[in-house]
Amino acid sequence: MGDGEAIKIGLLGRGTVGGAFALLVEQRADAIARLTGKRPSIGGVLTSSTGDFDQILEDSDVIVELIGGLDPARDYVLRALKAGKPVISANKALVSTHGAELFAASAESGAPLFFEAAVAGVIPAIRVIEESLAGAHVERVHGIVNGTTNYILTEMANSGLSYDEALKQAQDLGYAEADPTADVGGGDAAAKMAILARLAFGLDVSFDQVVFEGIENITSEDIAYAREFDLVLKLVGTAERINGGISVRVFPAFLYPSHPLASVHGSFNAVTVESPAITEITMSGPGAGGVQTASAVLGDLVSILSGVPRTRGEAAPATIVDDVKSAFYLHLEVEDRPGVLAEVAAALGNHDVSVRNFNQQGTPDAARLVMVMHPTLESNFFAAVAEIAALPFVGAAPRAIRVIEEEFGS
Amino acid sequence: MGDGEAIKIGLLGRGTVGGAFALLVEQRADAIARLTGKRPSIGGVLTSSTGDFDQILEDSDVIVELIGGLDPARDYVLRALKAGKPVISANKALVSTHGAELFAASAESGAPLFFEAAVAGVIPAIRVIEESLAGAHVERVHGIVNGTTNYILTEMANSGLSYDEALKQAQDLGYAEADPTADVGGGDAAAKMAILARLAFGLDVSFDQVVFEGIENITSEDIAYAREFDLVLKLVGTAERINGGISVRVFPAFLYPSHPLASVHGSFNAVTVESPAITEITMSGPGAGGVQTASAVLGDLVSILSGVPRTRGEAAPATIVDDVKSAFYLHLEVEDRPGVLAEVAAALGNHDVSVRNFNQQGTPDAARLVMVMHPTLESNFFAAVAEIAALPFVGAAPRAIRVIEEEFGS
Repeated sequence: MGDGEAIKIGLLGRGTVGGAFALLVEQRADAIARLTGKRPSIGGVLTSSTGDFDQILEDSDVIVELIGGLDPARDYVLRALKAGKPVISANKALVSTHGAELFAASAESGAPLFFEAAVAGVIPAIRVIEESLAGAHVERVHGIVNGTTNYILTEMANSGLSYDEALKQAQDLGYAEADPTADVGGGDAAAKMAILARLAFGLDVSFDQVVFEGIENITSEDIAYAREFDLVLKLVGTAERINGGISVRVFPAFLYPSHPLASVHGSFNAVTVESPAITEITMSGPGAGGVQTASAVLGDLVSILSGVPRTRGEAAPATIVDDVKSAFYLHLEVEDRPGVLAEVAAALGNHDVSVRNFNQQGTPDAARLVMVMHPTLESNFFAAVAEIAALPFVGAAPRAIRVIEEEFGS
Repeated sequence: MGDGEAIKIGLLGRGTVGGAFALLVEQRADAIARLTGKRPSIGGVLTSSTGDFDQILEDSDVIVELIGGLDPARDYVLRALKAGKPVISANKALVSTHGAELFAASAESGAPLFFEAAVAGVIPAIRVIEESLAGAHVERVHGIVNGTTNYILTEMANSGLSYDEALKQAQDLGYAEADPTADVGGGDAAAKMAILARLAFGLDVSFDQVVFEGIENITSEDIAYAREFDLVLKLVGTAERINGGISVRVFPAFLYPSHPLASVHGSFNAVTVESPAITEITMSGPGAGGVQTASAVLGDLVSILSGVPRTRGEAAPATIVDDVKSAFYLHLEVEDRPGVLAEVAAALGNHDVSVRNFNQQGTPDAARLVMVMHPTLESNFFAAVAEIAALPFVGAAPRAIRVIEEEFGS
């Protein structure tokens, strides 16, 4: 059993993930030494109350940043990279906001920067995009990259819970935080999609270029009605090339059951990468959990000790396309009288919106119209909805939710 | 646009995959040069009628072996590795049969050996196991690693086709070869599972240690009856640690719909890797196609040009466990008279086999008993089936098919 060259890890932050990582390093040190000839151990640990960063940096061969947030994480990671020390970070906010600066520091000193744990839990989305698909032309990435919202939506669909009830349940089980804003508002998913977009397209994409919506306004009725069209609701992140630019968005969307993301349930995450030559690759797995995230960090550590290269050249600025084509589900409550349908159809036609599926049901006092549209420019669709909302016979505000059509089949 | 250092590729074999690969190299040369600083181009090409291997080896920086089969591929790959040239191979027969010898040659000269395209089409199963999970303790790998059989089984389930009809359709569409034995007999999947097992467990596993069955004897009735239990039939490869040894097998199996492989349809492939710390990762994508396989080869090329290391140490011999625990589906045609069920139940009980689900249906002349068993040692189950088959009231031969239980849920 070779001892291997001793490698000291400087651990910044020792919460759930940090504790699990320290334990994993100890448990797997023999196996890693056999594999890489290097034996890692935790050297210094920095917490909010103990440790000195300068001393830890000086004493460590590799820095693992698990503090989260922008400050002081940004400063620590930059200083480590500038000092030529390989860095592993699980910090999606940092990489999605200051990616260009971090990559430049990594390229300048040659110190690799790894951050698999920042996106999609145990799913090796970053490694697959940066290595397996490095030579490919990626057209689009779809992801369910937030486990909290996927858990809530799964519970709403399976148990008929309201949004508030499902959120409460997620909080009780530890899947959602006391302040769930970052998760349910879509911001967490947006940060992860910014990172995936940057790597998939080789462009300088940052968090503030991602348009996002959350799931706070989704009702169990939306999910129940859409079931008539066999649709499943997910919070989906999309990064795609459009007309020479790109679009990176996060939004609640209905999926057809044959879509690779439609069967991703509970707190699982999944990422689908589409490229002409490969068609598509889908990866799925647990989206959260201390030991799962720590495992992703450990994978990065083994790569560093094995000598897998990971510095990135300068990326061109991204041109963001604002108005994209989407399919929509539209739900209207209208008075049940002749001529209503014709006026709705006329409003849609006025804006070049065409209907793919249509369903009308009478209720005691009114009628419910539920439609799925063919893909159309979102500006056109929303103009049509505004016109429809102003019609005198339309009751409650129209409910419009995007639909992702099946792209590939088998 | 930097030219990059010129890299000459020696291409052995120029069939569908070789042609697609040559085209991809040309199309992506600029992008690869930007990424790696090295510009690849096809130098010599060896076919059965043209080219000289010694000359190509001397003139090339990287060898890409797409000949298939053991001879002369083995000789060429060994000579290239011994000459210190990095090798990419898509040859599952070669790697699953002569893995130990190839890895030793690679380790001795330091020339890396890559073979992502040998297993599971575009799915980066090998990279994920060898890199992301290099530090993890993998307990089990499940895979649908043969697209032809998955296509046939999907068509039998969806269209009610017989096995022969579905095979004919697969042949007409180019998914199955004129002689489909390697695919439908399970041998192709067995070779791929041997490779996955070797890498996942770090043990010296070879093709001849894999027990495999194919799908030739599956009937559309098996699939239809099992639907009553909500089961889906797939040809599944399993590599798992058991009692200090391992078991690597390929067999037709019923899956519960919540299993990550149950929703893999048509000619798609999928691989699920289970490890305590990560829980599970599932990857899916197209299992075949010239350009898809060529893309996997291109991914390996980019890794070589980037300097991703890939030599492997000596692996310990694998201890193969012969008798494993499995759950089974059992279908019996029996006379419809009192006492039958008691005798069947007694035979099962004699061998410690216990029933999980049971369904009985009368037919005009007889009764059909369909059961799903709890997991039990296969030797016990088959002893019970032999006892049942000998009972005087049992008609047609019992149909027994393995069932894979849901392990994880969400």
